[in-house]
Amino acid sequence: MSKIRVTIWNEFIHEKHNPEVKKLYPEGIHGMLAKALAASDLEIRTATLDEPEHGLTQEVLDNTDVLLWWGHAAHDKVADEVVQRVLTRVWEGMGIIALHSAHMAKVFRQLNGTSGKLHWRESGDKERIWVTNPAHPITYNLPEYFELPYEEMYGEPFMIANDAQVLMISWFEGGEVFRSGFTLQRGNGKLFYFRPGHESFPTYYNENVQKVLANAIRWAKPVISTPYPKTHRPEALEKLSTKDFAFGKAGIIKD
Amino acid sequence: MSKIRVTIWNEFIHEKHNPEVKKLYPEGIHGMLAKALAASDLEIRTATLDEPEHGLTQEVLDNTDVLLWWGHAAHDKVADEVVQRVLTRVWEGMGIIALHSAHMAKVFRQLNGTSGKLHWRESGDKERIWVTNPAHPITYNLPEYFELPYEEMYGEPFMIANDAQVLMISWFEGGEVFRSGFTLQRGNGKLFYFRPGHESFPTYYNENVQKVLANAIRWAKPVISTPYPKTHRPEALEKLSTKDFAFGKAGIIKD
Amino acid sequence: MSKIRVTIWNEFIHEKHNPEVKKLYPEGIHGMLAKALAASDLEIRTATLDEPEHGLTQEVLDNTDVLLWWGHAAHDKVADEVVQRVLTRVWEGMGIIALHSAHMAKVFRQLNGTSGKLHWRESGDKERIWVTNPAHPITYNLPEYFELPYEEMYGEPFMIANDAQVLMISWFEGGEVFRSGFTLQRGNGKLFYFRPGHESFPTYYNENVQKVLANAIRWAKPVISTPYPKTHRPEALEKLSTKDFAFGKAGIIKD
Amino acid sequence: MSKIRVTIWNEFIHEKHNPEVKKLYPEGIHGMLAKALAASDLEIRTATLDEPEHGLTQEVLDNTDVLLWWGHAAHDKVADEVVQRVLTRVWEGMGIIALHSAHMAKVFRQLNGTSGKLHWRESGDKERIWVTNPAHPITYNLPEYFELPYEEMYGEPFMIANDAQVLMISWFEGGEVFRSGFTLQRGNGKLFYFRPGHESFPTYYNENVQKVLANAIRWAKPVISTPYPKTHRPEALEKLSTKDFAFGKAGIIKD
Repeated sequence: MSKIRVTIWNEFIHEKHNPEVKKLYPEGIHGMLAKALAASDLEIRTATLDEPEHGLTQEVLDNTDVLLWWGHAAHDKVADEVVQRVLTRVWEGMGIIALHSAHMAKVFRQLNGTSGKLHWRESGDKERIWVTNPAHPITYNLPEYFELPYEEMYGEPFMIANDAQVLMISWFEGGEVFRSGFTLQRGNGKLFYFRPGHESFPTYYNENVQKVLANAIRWAKPVISTPYPKTHRPEALEKLSTKDFAFGKAGIIKD
Repeated sequence: MSKIRVTIWNEFIHEKHNPEVKKLYPEGIHGMLAKALAASDLEIRTATLDEPEHGLTQEVLDNTDVLLWWGHAAHDKVADEVVQRVLTRVWEGMGIIALHSAHMAKVFRQLNGTSGKLHWRESGDKERIWVTNPAHPITYNLPEYFELPYEEMYGEPFMIANDAQVLMISWFEGGEVFRSGFTLQRGNGKLFYFRPGHESFPTYYNENVQKVLANAIRWAKPVISTPYPKTHRPEALEKLSTKDFAFGKAGIIKD
Repeated sequence: MSKIRVTIWNEFIHEKHNPEVKKLYPEGIHGMLAKALAASDLEIRTATLDEPEHGLTQEVLDNTDVLLWWGHAAHDKVADEVVQRVLTRVWEGMGIIALHSAHMAKVFRQLNGTSGKLHWRESGDKERIWVTNPAHPITYNLPEYFELPYEEMYGEPFMIANDAQVLMISWFEGGEVFRSGFTLQRGNGKLFYFRPGHESFPTYYNENVQKVLANAIRWAKPVISTPYPKTHRPEALEKLSTKDFAFGKAGIIKD
Repeated sequence: MSKIRVTIWNEFIHEKHNPEVKKLYPEGIHGMLAKALAASDLEIRTATLDEPEHGLTQEVLDNTDVLLWWGHAAHDKVADEVVQRVLTRVWEGMGIIALHSAHMAKVFRQLNGTSGKLHWRESGDKERIWVTNPAHPITYNLPEYFELPYEEMYGEPFMIANDAQVLMISWFEGGEVFRSGFTLQRGNGKLFYFRPGHESFPTYYNENVQKVLANAIRWAKPVISTPYPKTHRPEALEKLSTKDFAFGKAGIIKD
């Protein structure tokens, strides 16, 4: 079986400008995850905001099965042309995994069809993540719950699409709850959102967090990956009856 | 009880440039629907593409409870700024009813998070619309099915969000099927998509079509209509434990 | 507009046998709720396990728009015939509101299609209920969250149908989370489950709890209430083509 | 990788009593499918109504990963004890594939939580099945649509759970439409319903029908298969505050 081609995208800003974040992720969150998730069935590359076309050229996306997305401080710096390119690839079948503050990324908001807003507190709360669907491939091999000693708090209501299949709900020491892991399908592509991963904490070193991402990559790989077929179907499959009404075709090709 | 404030938006192009369409809808689809849907509990206004800001100023949208949208030939002429304004109002609570070829309108696609694509044939097929959820307010008082003697064919697969609650499925004489009526919630706002309504046919004069739209307007009116509250919640509701880890706050206000 | 006919069903056991519960609910949970929810648009009656047919005769159910159900210690004492009668009425259109430990009631489990299991601790935890969908009629007029000073803990995973539209999620002082309010549609009928309401606590005296139940009753009233129409449709709507295959009709009437 | 253990259950009545059905399926539908679906990754056995415990002993079910169910004339002859056994195994993780008239089987109705009713006509209609979700493992490798020259008609509204993820919709020559393929999750188990397969027609010899069933078996195999863990959790994960309210524990163990 051919390898799953994974591209880990990171805006890569905090790690360069904040010394404490740099200490946690010297190679950037993308670099650290590329090493942590390395496996024989995966072919992993990384891309960042500062690269030409943010490192997400058509060629790169055409050769990506699953895209991971971490962004926080520069959502508005992501070019709309690249956003549209990512959406189109998701509709074709590319899987996408949105991480933590990517809830405000253009790609996440447009795939949800919502504002992506939530409540937040950069507090270092203890977070306990409960598995609500233990039979899903993404939660495979997880304990009933796992804890993160310090994280940013995200609280409900979380503005996401109603069809989110919720897999995990977080309990926060400070008194809030949050739908921390959920899936969507958009066109042929699958989306998974995973809440933890604030840049100021060693979250991505957590064994269960890595297990979730490893499971999610395998789950998100395309079943099929193809553009929508020709939309104009001038020929009917069954004989049409004759009508007592003549009409002028006003339509235009929508393809 | 105060009236439901309805705005019927129409790109209003075919009716001006195609004589046969003009014959069917001399006042435009918007003008015809405004008369057909008039009722004592509704306050209806119309807006069209050619008006300044397409007739959808902030003031108009702030005073709209339910927006109907008909577009076909000029989706790309709708300014992104106006699209964003409409999305924001939907997230606040404004209901939106997308009509027929609005499946390719920017607002519809961005609320679905999909391409909105489908198969189509401008053929004058006979269409039979089956009610699959007879207990929904939008299908209230409809027969088990109703027929349209001639319509444009729309066929599956229809690229819409999975959380679509399907209320009606169409049978086409030419051999296709289609999810012709479905609902979504996005933020505080409700969306209803209704398939029939090709400009070349007298579809909007059909009694059952009008009944669906009348029901949908009452269903789509906001339960609440308000922006998302302040997202930054610096104070915890419960006492936070002291941590063995110090961190530099790298975050930025997301509001 | 005619009144909504509400029947509040309670197994009525703890209130008779446990002095502390009796002190809290001297007239039974059903009696207390009947008074607390009394309103000019409601016609409320009560029914309990010990009555003939548990007080849920065909005549009573045929004249019930919304049924509230509280059970805990005697789920297995509810006759299957009555359970089937309730299910049939829900499929026709009767709304049903399942309260607290009704998550193990036969009617709840059979409408969900699941075991209804969850984690629990009779501990008097503080519970904080977060509204995750502030635009739903059932959460209308609620604050962002409300608290109960002492309740039984219910924890995830909660075995419910995936189509549950979750409106509220609870945070428990002891470290758990729970989907405390959700809706389903089954046939023509609507179901709402609401978690709080352990017999040992004064939960039903809480203003927000009463507000939720009052909203839910109005939401759950039938849009239509009717049995499924004749299922056998021997006549086709369109002319059938002649076939090159003869078959013996082996079917039996399923009605 | 160990084989997927498949049990094909059939009431096996029509094939014995109706000569034309016997001609089509001399070994019974179960026997024919066992041969048609045979593959190196599957371990297939069959079971029928007349066997002791209908051939579905605890031992058989405990060693079944995916259960196929065909029933029509004798739904009421299936013992409730066996039905409960099947439901429990589904909640543990066993996949179940309900075929054609199994829409009225006790297991199907109780997993849906609905009456399972639909419209039908034993007419030999031509059926065209459209794939509405081409990116699902169950529709993998199918054409955009496929046709069956003669089948029983099933028409909407189909009384199923709203969370049904619809994968296919049928067009019938006689003018009806139907949600012919959909999935549910119940507890840890997955359900797939597939409409075609009337005993009077050679439907199960169709290549695409067999492809759907082959895909569905691989899809339905358990991710995990385990009973719900202990529900009583007397110990809190976090320290509980002291309360100003004493209560008598009235609860009973629900396990």
